[in-house]
Amino acid sequence: MARTTLEARDLWADIEALRQRRPLVHSITNVVVSNFNANVLLAAGASPVMTQAHEELADMVAIAQALVLNIGTLDAYAVEAMTIALRAANARAVPAVLDPVGAGATPYRNRTLAALLAAGRPTAIRGNASEIMSLAGEAVATRGVDSSAGAEAALAPARALAARTGAVVCVSGAVDHVVAADGRVLRLANGHEWMTRITGVGCSLTALVGAFCAVQPDAWRATAAATALMGVAGEIAAEQARARGAGVGTMAALLVDALQLVDEAGFLSRARIEHD
Amino acid sequence: MARTTLEARDLWADIEALRQRRPLVHSITNVVVSNFNANVLLAAGASPVMTQAHEELADMVAIAQALVLNIGTLDAYAVEAMTIALRAANARAVPAVLDPVGAGATPYRNRTLAALLAAGRPTAIRGNASEIMSLAGEAVATRGVDSSAGAEAALAPARALAARTGAVVCVSGAVDHVVAADGRVLRLANGHEWMTRITGVGCSLTALVGAFCAVQPDAWRATAAATALMGVAGEIAAEQARARGAGVGTMAALLVDALQLVDEAGFLSRARIEHD
Amino acid sequence: MARTTLEARDLWADIEALRQRRPLVHSITNVVVSNFNANVLLAAGASPVMTQAHEELADMVAIAQALVLNIGTLDAYAVEAMTIALRAANARAVPAVLDPVGAGATPYRNRTLAALLAAGRPTAIRGNASEIMSLAGEAVATRGVDSSAGAEAALAPARALAARTGAVVCVSGAVDHVVAADGRVLRLANGHEWMTRITGVGCSLTALVGAFCAVQPDAWRATAAATALMGVAGEIAAEQARARGAGVGTMAALLVDALQLVDEAGFLSRARIEHD
Repeated sequence: MARTTLEARDLWADIEALRQRRPLVHSITNVVVSNFNANVLLAAGASPVMTQAHEELADMVAIAQALVLNIGTLDAYAVEAMTIALRAANARAVPAVLDPVGAGATPYRNRTLAALLAAGRPTAIRGNASEIMSLAGEAVATRGVDSSAGAEAALAPARALAARTGAVVCVSGAVDHVVAADGRVLRLANGHEWMTRITGVGCSLTALVGAFCAVQPDAWRATAAATALMGVAGEIAAEQARARGAGVGTMAALLVDALQLVDEAGFLSRARIEHD
Repeated sequence: MARTTLEARDLWADIEALRQRRPLVHSITNVVVSNFNANVLLAAGASPVMTQAHEELADMVAIAQALVLNIGTLDAYAVEAMTIALRAANARAVPAVLDPVGAGATPYRNRTLAALLAAGRPTAIRGNASEIMSLAGEAVATRGVDSSAGAEAALAPARALAARTGAVVCVSGAVDHVVAADGRVLRLANGHEWMTRITGVGCSLTALVGAFCAVQPDAWRATAAATALMGVAGEIAAEQARARGAGVGTMAALLVDALQLVDEAGFLSRARIEHD
Repeated sequence: MARTTLEARDLWADIEALRQRRPLVHSITNVVVSNFNANVLLAAGASPVMTQAHEELADMVAIAQALVLNIGTLDAYAVEAMTIALRAANARAVPAVLDPVGAGATPYRNRTLAALLAAGRPTAIRGNASEIMSLAGEAVATRGVDSSAGAEAALAPARALAARTGAVVCVSGAVDHVVAADGRVLRLANGHEWMTRITGVGCSLTALVGAFCAVQPDAWRATAAATALMGVAGEIAAEQARARGAGVGTMAALLVDALQLVDEAGFLSRARIEHD
């Protein structure tokens, strides 16, 4: 039976499982963040592969343990690729995670997301507050790809979106909210404001959600583990960067370091988990 | 009335405005530098968004405060996207900045640039000497995407190009030249040779020109502020890297750090501005 | 006459030639690694240019000193671009290097590689053991883009592939194998396991093979020089990262640093070359 509350040591067990099992994570993601996403996945222990060639999507999904879809930079070919891959993942029970980058920013993004959700069922959806509120049907003005609302404001929309789609919904913000379709809610109070000043941190968290879904069948717990790991690593990286008078450029590399090197004691002492 | 001479404290005021107002900068740029460009924009205070989906270009330009076009990696879809976006930006008086990467290297690049300049009016154009000379109609052999000429040699062609297009023209080199259509010329003697050993520094300067045009209506001054900030940050990063025995890999991260962290005293003590 | 054995000082001479001659290297590579590849080429002394626009491929190949093809992220347009560029390179005797990323992972990749090898002749082919074994016709299960076999197992297939194609074949692994069509084999025992945890290190080695082929006409020796340089730089970067308690994020920047800064004494003391 799925757990209804989680402790840091549960999430640490998932981090260790990821490091040991090294699942293959197939991403169809945007060109801006693809390199950083791949390095984040490698550092955390996963094996990334990225392709959107229609000719090989079914074959790649068939050997992958998770699929990650990110709509950051779209065109008709990529949208069709995501549709094909999502259906293939659903057919094979491969977990599929969706990042609705810029939801609400343009009608085209909203139409594309509606079509994707009509075509298949994501296991988890991760976005910032604006994106989740938009995807849940709220009238919210997303400003480009950065959030214009706080995560708290997105909790009710996230619950509605989870109930409607059956997916775990993760709202990133100063406090992250992880919402299951069955009503479970977990909050994570890790991270650092500078994480929003490095492109692709949110997208890379989505990729990590995919990686954890490959090793932890409870998608709510998997999403919590990914979010906690990214938040703890971000805290460590920001502290290290600031201690040496460095900024977000150096911090980006230290974030990857921390994803690889954080140990049990460091994780357990930092992870700040709250339940409703 | 537009200023005819600028001091470092004028440019610092623009840097502070950028950090406070966080304009949304829409880039259609090449796949090689998109990640670095986004991180440069975030570090300097802007909010980057990148898309070339034709379906949403007009909507994205409508919520952006600046548009940046970079022809580094082209195909027919991207060229049409740039044309649509440039026209939309002109129609809405959104400043549009053009980076003619590799101008002169192939006839295709030259044709593409001619078509873009026929389709719309960029607010500013930034390139290295070879690129600006080629775009100005000089017979110059561009070697790939790196310059084969010094910035001084491009001053007269830059003046001609500015007069013809109405755009501010910025020629990057050991000394950067910023030329307005009305004849104003400003030189900036900051930077470090290693900046040419990091891919995307020039492209990222172009992105910064867009960001500054979003907060400073005098495009000549905005271009000078962007160029000075990048030059000063490059100097700081090179000094820090060399002081620790590091090279251009470490310097790339330190450059992003410096864009974020340079303070008033540091900027004013370093900026080297000259007028004709 | 081509040398049959090589010493570290031979390879160092090629490294110095690369730094002095700065050849233009035209890459058609995957979107995940294009930024890192370009920075690796710049750090080692080459001048990178990346384009797959069909309209300019022949012109770009004509001014390049080497061509690099990487099938990491494919679509029909890119495959046609690679075919056009490979033929143009062959016609002009520009060295062309192929990275068969993910060979064996899907039938589409295998078909694409077969078509490329039917369309033209690469000067060198570099991959991990799974990829080389697959390309040589072995039935091997490639898991995404990471190898599932050791380099030793790929030696006989590499010999067969080299004999069949006429290309130098480089198998990357804990020990790298460089195999010429005439039977010469050289092994390089440099590198560090963490190099597999940074995306694009293998792809960047392939790019370096192209750069060295531009300055060293014996492709076997050029491939050895590239492999030795990357291996030595990786060792240095891993040592420096670990000495400061850092991980693979920091190491990626230090690897670029080491490619730029490694000196003769450092290279000669580290390079571990073996012949059969």
